[in-house]
Amino acid sequence: MGAVKTKRMPRAVREQQMLDAAVRTFGRRGYMAASMDEIAELAGVSKPLVYLYLNSKEDLFSACIRREAAALTEAVRAAVRADAPADRQLWEGLRAFFTHTARYPDGWAVLHLQARTHGEPFASEVAAMRAEIVAFVTQLIAVTARDAHGDPDLPEHDVAGLAEALVGAAESLAAWANTTPGVTARQAAATLMNFAWAGLGNLMEGRAWSPSGEQPVAQKG
Amino acid sequence: MGAVKTKRMPRAVREQQMLDAAVRTFGRRGYMAASMDEIAELAGVSKPLVYLYLNSKEDLFSACIRREAAALTEAVRAAVRADAPADRQLWEGLRAFFTHTARYPDGWAVLHLQARTHGEPFASEVAAMRAEIVAFVTQLIAVTARDAHGDPDLPEHDVAGLAEALVGAAESLAAWANTTPGVTARQAAATLMNFAWAGLGNLMEGRAWSPSGEQPVAQKG
Repeated sequence: MGAVKTKRMPRAVREQQMLDAAVRTFGRRGYMAASMDEIAELAGVSKPLVYLYLNSKEDLFSACIRREAAALTEAVRAAVRADAPADRQLWEGLRAFFTHTARYPDGWAVLHLQARTHGEPFASEVAAMRAEIVAFVTQLIAVTARDAHGDPDLPEHDVAGLAEALVGAAESLAAWANTTPGVTARQAAATLMNFAWAGLGNLMEGRAWSPSGEQPVAQKG
Repeated sequence: MGAVKTKRMPRAVREQQMLDAAVRTFGRRGYMAASMDEIAELAGVSKPLVYLYLNSKEDLFSACIRREAAALTEAVRAAVRADAPADRQLWEGLRAFFTHTARYPDGWAVLHLQARTHGEPFASEVAAMRAEIVAFVTQLIAVTARDAHGDPDLPEHDVAGLAEALVGAAESLAAWANTTPGVTARQAAATLMNFAWAGLGNLMEGRAWSPSGEQPVAQKG
């Protein structure tokens, strides 16, 4: 294959172009319907070169998932200041999340729709990213609960459930915002922040919802 | 095909058995990996009979989606009393939703994971069911907002966003509850009710979240 050193840079650049084309094609057509011909043409390279660099359609799809997942988690991480109050951290994280998914809708479609249902190893790669985000939110809620009470009365299971609810809400809103004209990333973030925090804020203060005239609905039992 | 009349009942029963086997196989293996051989064997019939009754793997999968979607929306509808207060309606709806998805985890996997990403016509069938549930929740939130204010200051876009957030949270929690040992349907419903209603309740009263010392985060603009 010739002198590796002088070719390294162009290869990295070409690989990124192939991945850009692949994310766009997988995100819009779906994994099954996407063709390697179309990806190669969109990347402006020959199909054999795509196979030479990325090996197979499966490997190319895996590379797309890894790149898009890393970019999304990095965008959220970079936006959140660990020394900020918990609500502020959540707000900055949500803004970064919705800004990123609005800017890269094809990448979001690959992660949210395509990667989850085409079996292994794709599903577990995106599940790992999702678990990382859920863990971050769980930690945020747990810290807030501990700050609010000396002795937190939100058991671990409940905190995990709240984090799952929040992440599911964010996923749903991102898909909605990307397909609804006139909804900005900031609006989507504000909707979820208001929905989530006013609710979480109440829970932290021990104010659960209750049917009128009855006891609050226990999250346990 | 002989006398239709005397065979009608057994055929309907056998079709349900085939659908039961198909939902279980699609839900656990995924659409691509599921084999018609396995479905026929599980249903206790010959493979030609499955094709005779349900025509093709695609049609069989469509029939599964339609049956599971109808059963889920019917379970939620039946639980909600239209004359109850809005929070009560949501609570009954959530309990029915989580009870149903816990009781039929394979059906839920077909709707939530499989149907959404294998292209048309599957995606639009499940999208129609989801849209119906989102419309129900949107209506519930809009009515509550109208009751809380004379002149509701939650614009239509925001209400739609809140409904999307709530439905996404429910989807996420159902998948989590079905894969987390020891989480009951009632717990999942209570977690989401507390999360959602305490938050929505605040919004209805005009109490949005705000960064400390700043204006509330507008959902518009």
